[in-house]
Amino acid sequence: MKNGPVRVGIIGSQFQADCHAAAIGMVEEDMSVVAVASPTAAHAQAFADRYKVAKIYNDYKELARDPQVEAVTITAPNALHCEMTVTMAQAGKHVICEKPLCVTLDEADRMIAACRSNGVLLLYAESLLFTPKYVKAKEMADSGAFGRVHLIKQSEKHFGPHAEWFWDVKRAGGGALLDLGSHGIGFSYWFLGRPKILSAYSHLGTYVHGDKTKLDDEAVTIIEFEGNAIAVIENSWARRGGMDDRIEVYGEGGLTMANLQMGNALPTYSEYGYGYAVEKAPTTKGWSHPVFQELWNYGFPQEMRHFARAIRGSEAPLFTGEDGKIVLEAIYAGYASAGLGHKVTLPFKPTAERPVDEWLNRKKA
Amino acid sequence: MKNGPVRVGIIGSQFQADCHAAAIGMVEEDMSVVAVASPTAAHAQAFADRYKVAKIYNDYKELARDPQVEAVTITAPNALHCEMTVTMAQAGKHVICEKPLCVTLDEADRMIAACRSNGVLLLYAESLLFTPKYVKAKEMADSGAFGRVHLIKQSEKHFGPHAEWFWDVKRAGGGALLDLGSHGIGFSYWFLGRPKILSAYSHLGTYVHGDKTKLDDEAVTIIEFEGNAIAVIENSWARRGGMDDRIEVYGEGGLTMANLQMGNALPTYSEYGYGYAVEKAPTTKGWSHPVFQELWNYGFPQEMRHFARAIRGSEAPLFTGEDGKIVLEAIYAGYASAGLGHKVTLPFKPTAERPVDEWLNRKKA
Amino acid sequence: MKNGPVRVGIIGSQFQADCHAAAIGMVEEDMSVVAVASPTAAHAQAFADRYKVAKIYNDYKELARDPQVEAVTITAPNALHCEMTVTMAQAGKHVICEKPLCVTLDEADRMIAACRSNGVLLLYAESLLFTPKYVKAKEMADSGAFGRVHLIKQSEKHFGPHAEWFWDVKRAGGGALLDLGSHGIGFSYWFLGRPKILSAYSHLGTYVHGDKTKLDDEAVTIIEFEGNAIAVIENSWARRGGMDDRIEVYGEGGLTMANLQMGNALPTYSEYGYGYAVEKAPTTKGWSHPVFQELWNYGFPQEMRHFARAIRGSEAPLFTGEDGKIVLEAIYAGYASAGLGHKVTLPFKPTAERPVDEWLNRKKA
Amino acid sequence: MKNGPVRVGIIGSQFQADCHAAAIGMVEEDMSVVAVASPTAAHAQAFADRYKVAKIYNDYKELARDPQVEAVTITAPNALHCEMTVTMAQAGKHVICEKPLCVTLDEADRMIAACRSNGVLLLYAESLLFTPKYVKAKEMADSGAFGRVHLIKQSEKHFGPHAEWFWDVKRAGGGALLDLGSHGIGFSYWFLGRPKILSAYSHLGTYVHGDKTKLDDEAVTIIEFEGNAIAVIENSWARRGGMDDRIEVYGEGGLTMANLQMGNALPTYSEYGYGYAVEKAPTTKGWSHPVFQELWNYGFPQEMRHFARAIRGSEAPLFTGEDGKIVLEAIYAGYASAGLGHKVTLPFKPTAERPVDEWLNRKKA
Repeated sequence: MKNGPVRVGIIGSQFQADCHAAAIGMVEEDMSVVAVASPTAAHAQAFADRYKVAKIYNDYKELARDPQVEAVTITAPNALHCEMTVTMAQAGKHVICEKPLCVTLDEADRMIAACRSNGVLLLYAESLLFTPKYVKAKEMADSGAFGRVHLIKQSEKHFGPHAEWFWDVKRAGGGALLDLGSHGIGFSYWFLGRPKILSAYSHLGTYVHGDKTKLDDEAVTIIEFEGNAIAVIENSWARRGGMDDRIEVYGEGGLTMANLQMGNALPTYSEYGYGYAVEKAPTTKGWSHPVFQELWNYGFPQEMRHFARAIRGSEAPLFTGEDGKIVLEAIYAGYASAGLGHKVTLPFKPTAERPVDEWLNRKKA
Repeated sequence: MKNGPVRVGIIGSQFQADCHAAAIGMVEEDMSVVAVASPTAAHAQAFADRYKVAKIYNDYKELARDPQVEAVTITAPNALHCEMTVTMAQAGKHVICEKPLCVTLDEADRMIAACRSNGVLLLYAESLLFTPKYVKAKEMADSGAFGRVHLIKQSEKHFGPHAEWFWDVKRAGGGALLDLGSHGIGFSYWFLGRPKILSAYSHLGTYVHGDKTKLDDEAVTIIEFEGNAIAVIENSWARRGGMDDRIEVYGEGGLTMANLQMGNALPTYSEYGYGYAVEKAPTTKGWSHPVFQELWNYGFPQEMRHFARAIRGSEAPLFTGEDGKIVLEAIYAGYASAGLGHKVTLPFKPTAERPVDEWLNRKKA
Repeated sequence: MKNGPVRVGIIGSQFQADCHAAAIGMVEEDMSVVAVASPTAAHAQAFADRYKVAKIYNDYKELARDPQVEAVTITAPNALHCEMTVTMAQAGKHVICEKPLCVTLDEADRMIAACRSNGVLLLYAESLLFTPKYVKAKEMADSGAFGRVHLIKQSEKHFGPHAEWFWDVKRAGGGALLDLGSHGIGFSYWFLGRPKILSAYSHLGTYVHGDKTKLDDEAVTIIEFEGNAIAVIENSWARRGGMDDRIEVYGEGGLTMANLQMGNALPTYSEYGYGYAVEKAPTTKGWSHPVFQELWNYGFPQEMRHFARAIRGSEAPLFTGEDGKIVLEAIYAGYASAGLGHKVTLPFKPTAERPVDEWLNRKKA
Repeated sequence: MKNGPVRVGIIGSQFQADCHAAAIGMVEEDMSVVAVASPTAAHAQAFADRYKVAKIYNDYKELARDPQVEAVTITAPNALHCEMTVTMAQAGKHVICEKPLCVTLDEADRMIAACRSNGVLLLYAESLLFTPKYVKAKEMADSGAFGRVHLIKQSEKHFGPHAEWFWDVKRAGGGALLDLGSHGIGFSYWFLGRPKILSAYSHLGTYVHGDKTKLDDEAVTIIEFEGNAIAVIENSWARRGGMDDRIEVYGEGGLTMANLQMGNALPTYSEYGYGYAVEKAPTTKGWSHPVFQELWNYGFPQEMRHFARAIRGSEAPLFTGEDGKIVLEAIYAGYASAGLGHKVTLPFKPTAERPVDEWLNRKKA
């Protein structure tokens, strides 16, 4: 087995790629970024400068041929996840794939198969499994603090993504539910011990950003799990005031609540502003709610360390392509339910090209 | 027109009757309790002693014959609201009726008709319209603080009601959704300016109290309003740790959040305990979250003052039997949707005897 | 004894006069504003228009001659409190005097004597005794929740007063300690059951507003009470971000904390702003912390109702000129201690003209 | 220069030793525990078992002779810090010393001299310099968010220390001010950029634990710094409800507030309890405020990593014996001021044997 930090190539050079590189920099004993691939040469160069990355590729296929690279992280648009994963698997690289796993369930199957047949790991990047505050909630639940847990709430909301492609039906494949609901569904599924998902019901709407997208910018989803538990997942691209990420856990014997932003913040007032408060915060003048060690509090470095250790074989992979597919199937069912107006049971066989089409195709004019 | 405080008779002598009497005591210039009616003689006597009420009746029909009484408040089990209201209307008494208005839509029609034909007011006691913190949220919204509001959340949760009858299908007619969801639906309907309710979808379950009731002890409801807005209403009889009543309001230009208990509380630790923290709080030893002036912060005295002024003609009734019926219809649709697994559009024609039967009759074994 | 609402004349027409008039308007059964006196005719007229006050005087001595007026509230600069009180007492009017009672201890004696000899009440307006959240803290303490209480903290801070005269040594007589420390000292003295004040130690400075005043804009004061308890009082005219008013109470068996602004607020984000958040809030755009029913939560109407009832004889006066003098004596000692660098025991005999001079005269160049 | 993790021996086997060992375990690339020394054999053995420490010594002087040990951390009673440091320095070991540095200023001088003459580092363990939330506050301040900072508040409070020796005048040398005030003084001194300390004033008392100690269990301290800034430090061994550690920072242009416990917690209610909430928390049943990753949020592993890097020469020592002595001198002045009733200017020449004696010797009977 190889030794030393896992040598990673990052596909992408924008917001999410920055998160990965910064997080990897915090676990440098376990992982290091040795290459970046981005079709936009200037972005790739700037990224390489920011993180002192030695090699720059303008085509991810070149990255696949770099023998020094052991693993890649994929931060490209959702619609490219599958072909990139397959290419990397065939080149013998482990794959760390951002959520959602991909756009279609068929893609998910191909990704899983390609990684399996090439003997590489398909690691699905659900960061909430590593978020320290949420991990504490699970520890308490697992120690019996709340008795039997029957209701989990998770919400993630902001005013919309950074990159253009998120707003495009074809490249994204879904809106707030696909982009952010992945977190809530993956989280509650993991929190409850991976029970079978029985059904999904979503209410979706384009309430604020209808001028630039047909995708859902508000989503409320109810997931039923085997074993008499539900999750209520709320997602928004229409919430002002910065990022909002929260959970609530209810059992017959108690409850806990965790808020990653305002719940950890330093209540702050500044006439002059300061450098940075929190992801997607609107301003640092006036009252703001800066967080500390944001990446660490979100769990990104811990997640990358886990991936490195999974690749090195010292930890079992916590969430894989199979888990990502289960989450995606529930999202499909959610989109269909929003179009149909009724809850959709799983297993779900898609009839539309992309998750969001299950809704859009069924909406009345 | 009559003068002086409105002379009220209270039907009931338990928890809710206490709220009414205490609230009325805080607006003594506008209203006074002159009689109480309760079938349990000892309860009626104790109640009369607590609030110095002069007259005690063991049958509400005797109260109806008391010429001194101008109005009654009904805190009896839901299933009695209709017959009591009709009796009182026929006796020329104004009626202040606790939520829910009654059990069936047909009852609602009879109550409305009886009050109208006898020239008395049917005042529907939705206290959240008078809750100062929530009123502030509406003032901000109405002043344009959030731009167009498209999402309202309201939740009310505790570990189950005081009185026995709440747990009984026949006397209550519904569980957490009927008991507590009345608040959220009435509130969001009023907050948004009374738009038509288009549909309801509820997820219901009996997760914790299955040993003592078939009623829903958890409910998540999504209401669609005309004008492209929704409400997400969460209710529970299975939430530990005391009462929890909250709202969140989201528009394209901002948001606000209000919490009536922990959001107003004095974080407190006591080795020895103290008298009272907040409604349904489990203990006052250890950490607790006492609130101050609880009735006033809930808006009960303000509500009673409004009712008095409505009866005296100086204020227009804010919420009447017609509003209560609209709320009840949405609850019916919610119960039906939980049984059907799809959202139910309004107007809704009930097919079952009580709201909860729309769900129970359709549940699979 | 007279009946009906107590007929009050307000001396002053600015910020504090507004608080009084608005608060009185909330207890109209007990008190009504029948006249206003202000040397600035336009201000008086605008004030009378805002609150529908029938009579306007441009000299408070004319107000003293109005036979309809039963009582006055004094919101004029501190340096005028004494002469106004004496004039009003001689005219047979009850006097409600804003904090601080006056500037010198000699003035305090003259005010007390004048009211006593003329048979009128000298009511000292310490509003914190009526603040519902703080009253709840005292109720818990008195019920034994915390065991023996040995430490009380109270702080009141903002970015400086509205009116010009506050910044002027002669008209104000003291800065943050006199203006705001009156609250904390009066509150803790009352909270602990009026134990003798043994000593005071203040650290004072002019840290931010040195360009416009010589008065203290930051003050930290430690008060020792008989019975082995202390209060730590923090005051500032240099705190950005709006009003901040808090208490903490510690006993051997527990503690409680109360915050009147952020602790009661609706966390709010607005792109567009809205009417009003809270006293001295900088803006309503971006994040803000609006409170609801601010006057009521501060206790102003409850205070005015108490004063009315004290005047009508149905309640014993809770805080009088004698209490105001005790508070003022402690403030004098605090100013002296800041100049001397040591704690000053009471009783304290002033040597300087005004409280702040006890400090300024002793400061090294 | 040596390579690999710094090999550390821990002196002590109780609460603080646990913190060190657990924190070191989180930075295993930088530091490892190779030995423990404790006079109580059973404690040492249990400690070695908990943390898989290879070598156990029952006398720290044996530890000093272990050639494998590069550095030691001292968690023994305050009164032993000096002799242990001198012994270790003479044996060529770097010294990481818990706060307070020692008991007397003379001891401080001897420790500094011994380390200097033997060419080893004397690293003073002020963990607040590494607390991520507080570091964020300093970053904002340093970036100009608040303009000129003139007031810092820091408080640390709980219900009293674990180990017996803390309560003993001779072995501890001081109470809450020495034990906890070290943090606040060191923190504010560092936060403000190490300005000269001009004076200290403390109010001290034994309000709750007089049955078991003569030491101060409540302390309020005001520190004046050169450059027109002050710190207000509050410490208690008499605060119920678990650990409380907070800061507030005020400048002319803004403010920030940080709370390490309730400000990061998951508000939690449990009927059954769970493993662990937070340092010194009374119970996990009922309402509690568990924190996540407590050691990391306090900054302990970050502190140990810094010490390792300072020893390896890759980082300059952030806080040394000289800083610890400055803090101790201010504490001496504080104790003296409490006895004298006036603020005490620095430099301060002690006249008593231990810090607390400066107070106790001067107290009136």
